[in-house]
Amino acid sequence: MTPPLTFPPRPALPLTGGSWSDVPGAQCGVAKGRIKLRADRDDVVVLFTPGGSVAGVTTLSTAAAAPCRWTRDRLPGRASAVVINSGNANAATGRQGEADTLATAQAVAEVLGISADEVLVCSTGVIGQPMPMDRLLPAAREAAANLGDHGHRAARAILTTDLVVKEVSLDVDGVRFGGMAKGSGMIHPNMATMLGFIACDAKVAPEHLQPLVAAICDRTFNAITVDGDTSTNDTFLVQCTGHGKALSPESPGWASFAFGLEVAALELARAIARDGEGATSLVEVVVMGLEDDAQARHAARSIVRSNLLKSAIHGRDPNWGRIVGALGAAGVPHLDVLDLDIAGVPVMRGGQVLNWDEAAASAGLRSADVQITARLPGVGLGRAYGCDLSAEYVKINADYRS
Amino acid sequence: MTPPLTFPPRPALPLTGGSWSDVPGAQCGVAKGRIKLRADRDDVVVLFTPGGSVAGVTTLSTAAAAPCRWTRDRLPGRASAVVINSGNANAATGRQGEADTLATAQAVAEVLGISADEVLVCSTGVIGQPMPMDRLLPAAREAAANLGDHGHRAARAILTTDLVVKEVSLDVDGVRFGGMAKGSGMIHPNMATMLGFIACDAKVAPEHLQPLVAAICDRTFNAITVDGDTSTNDTFLVQCTGHGKALSPESPGWASFAFGLEVAALELARAIARDGEGATSLVEVVVMGLEDDAQARHAARSIVRSNLLKSAIHGRDPNWGRIVGALGAAGVPHLDVLDLDIAGVPVMRGGQVLNWDEAAASAGLRSADVQITARLPGVGLGRAYGCDLSAEYVKINADYRS
Repeated sequence: MTPPLTFPPRPALPLTGGSWSDVPGAQCGVAKGRIKLRADRDDVVVLFTPGGSVAGVTTLSTAAAAPCRWTRDRLPGRASAVVINSGNANAATGRQGEADTLATAQAVAEVLGISADEVLVCSTGVIGQPMPMDRLLPAAREAAANLGDHGHRAARAILTTDLVVKEVSLDVDGVRFGGMAKGSGMIHPNMATMLGFIACDAKVAPEHLQPLVAAICDRTFNAITVDGDTSTNDTFLVQCTGHGKALSPESPGWASFAFGLEVAALELARAIARDGEGATSLVEVVVMGLEDDAQARHAARSIVRSNLLKSAIHGRDPNWGRIVGALGAAGVPHLDVLDLDIAGVPVMRGGQVLNWDEAAASAGLRSADVQITARLPGVGLGRAYGCDLSAEYVKINADYRS
Repeated sequence: MTPPLTFPPRPALPLTGGSWSDVPGAQCGVAKGRIKLRADRDDVVVLFTPGGSVAGVTTLSTAAAAPCRWTRDRLPGRASAVVINSGNANAATGRQGEADTLATAQAVAEVLGISADEVLVCSTGVIGQPMPMDRLLPAAREAAANLGDHGHRAARAILTTDLVVKEVSLDVDGVRFGGMAKGSGMIHPNMATMLGFIACDAKVAPEHLQPLVAAICDRTFNAITVDGDTSTNDTFLVQCTGHGKALSPESPGWASFAFGLEVAALELARAIARDGEGATSLVEVVVMGLEDDAQARHAARSIVRSNLLKSAIHGRDPNWGRIVGALGAAGVPHLDVLDLDIAGVPVMRGGQVLNWDEAAASAGLRSADVQITARLPGVGLGRAYGCDLSAEYVKINADYRS
């Protein structure tokens, strides 16, 4: 029997069932803006971490929405508020979109008694529609005026068509983290934006926080592929309130802090992938080897985004040929010595197909958590997260407007 | 009324309904190899153009199959025979695959009285299965021993699970072209290989032919996207028999020759895209602008490969937001001044959405030939060809082995 490949286990920390606002110094407010006309639900959120620091990453899309560009220009920094709306992305809206973003930041800043430059803006929803400012502004003011421990309500308000609320909270070495995300649930794919918000009570300077957040984003939110498209509005923000431990990269507690932040981000990212539209399985691809982590991650992504493989996984078909094909198409070297496991079942060693247990692998693909593990020469380690491709996905996306 | 965007019309030349072997000096043979056990159909072809020249392009996949690597090493050149089998790709087959490729070339070479180095090899079919040499070799010898005008039969024999035969023939300025292709019909996606073969009777030196074939391949076969995956076996070969006009880049007839070759390749490429599995429409994306043709082609490809857009087209939803999103995700600049038409209906001008006729665009998407046209600043011109994404695609690919 060939033993299965082992790889560094996924970090596991006890989660505490809390919300973004469980973190000391983090408060939020929620309101109904009816941004999508007729929708009688919470859709405007204000996050407030006065005196804290913020770092983050926004979409690389050249069609980045106005709020995304506003937020990007203020990262990293001391901005202490974030205003979020769901229902309208304020994307492809030209100059008017920029003016509306500024007006939204100003409205929240007035209520909180800070400057508009200290207010970041995130929007998610339909593209190319003017923002209904007559409804957004009053709701933003209302949310800013009613701050408290409303994290769970906020986590629901930021959703568009996601099926499930995505939250995380944990304590690591005396630092508390709380987070929420909205995924590429993409029942309505013009709302495919990925938003992630994490608060923590550590006191960290923006210039120390930013490189850490960028690196963690690459390994978590940027490692998700539901359908390969980057949205116009993707944003991941980490706010440190400063109510707890003071930390810098030289502190003894920095490694634990970084670990906790990564676990929080990974939990949210996995929840997003699992909630991919029409999906029945979370697919995690681990590539060990190649020259560095970036190369390994590229290889892992190439597997997880292959429509052929995603369809095969949906059909519980452990189709290793499609994995080799996807790696080859991505230009991955050394495939003549590839080791490959599907759902814990060894399939290839040294580039040769084993006498493998196809039935066991097929059974493994029925799990809600599917793992594909590849090993190649080299020291890199890359993971990517995605989901299977179902006929439901197409149906949802084809029938969007009908 | 905003006039629709116009762009250089697709070259149109009268097609003559012939086959690969209608070209003077081009002969082929066909045999039944039962490469897929139990399949009682033609599946082995030998093409012969003695005294001619050959140029071509093979897959860039690092998992390129043994026959692909063999063929690549002999391009461009004076090789005068090609042996093709469907049913088994001879990919991911290690050293044995290389030995089998050599043995296949040798068997054909012996019958034709040439050297094995003058025989190119193409295989398409399942990945990772040893080639059944006991059945392939006799069939290859039989095909080589029975040469004639069997082009139509050959065009059927190279198919795996394509729904339709793909052939082209035309005369341009006294040069005759005949071609056939096998597509990414991908009912069985391990057979997603794209093969294209064109014969012409011009006399052209290999070193003049190769750069032309490479450039044309980029604008035709490489501009197709059915599901974004490059196969392990993709190959496009152009054989010039030398029975007709002698041509070089300095000849007055060279431009017509290049034009004819491009039209032949484009017809085959479009036929492949149209036959994408589960597809109901051929989608052609034209991008005018950007710095050069390569950038414009990259932008066009990013649109045609978006699952979100492909699903929308299947649902006849003229969802321009997904087009802007796909361009943005691909890093295309200047989207703030984008002009966009969907199915001949003007949708955006100068980055602003027009008061557009959504019903007309939706009706246009019901056509078997859908065009999306984008214009940006710059002098480039790029086209890409694909198809819509149907629930049928997923069903086919999920149920492949069950």
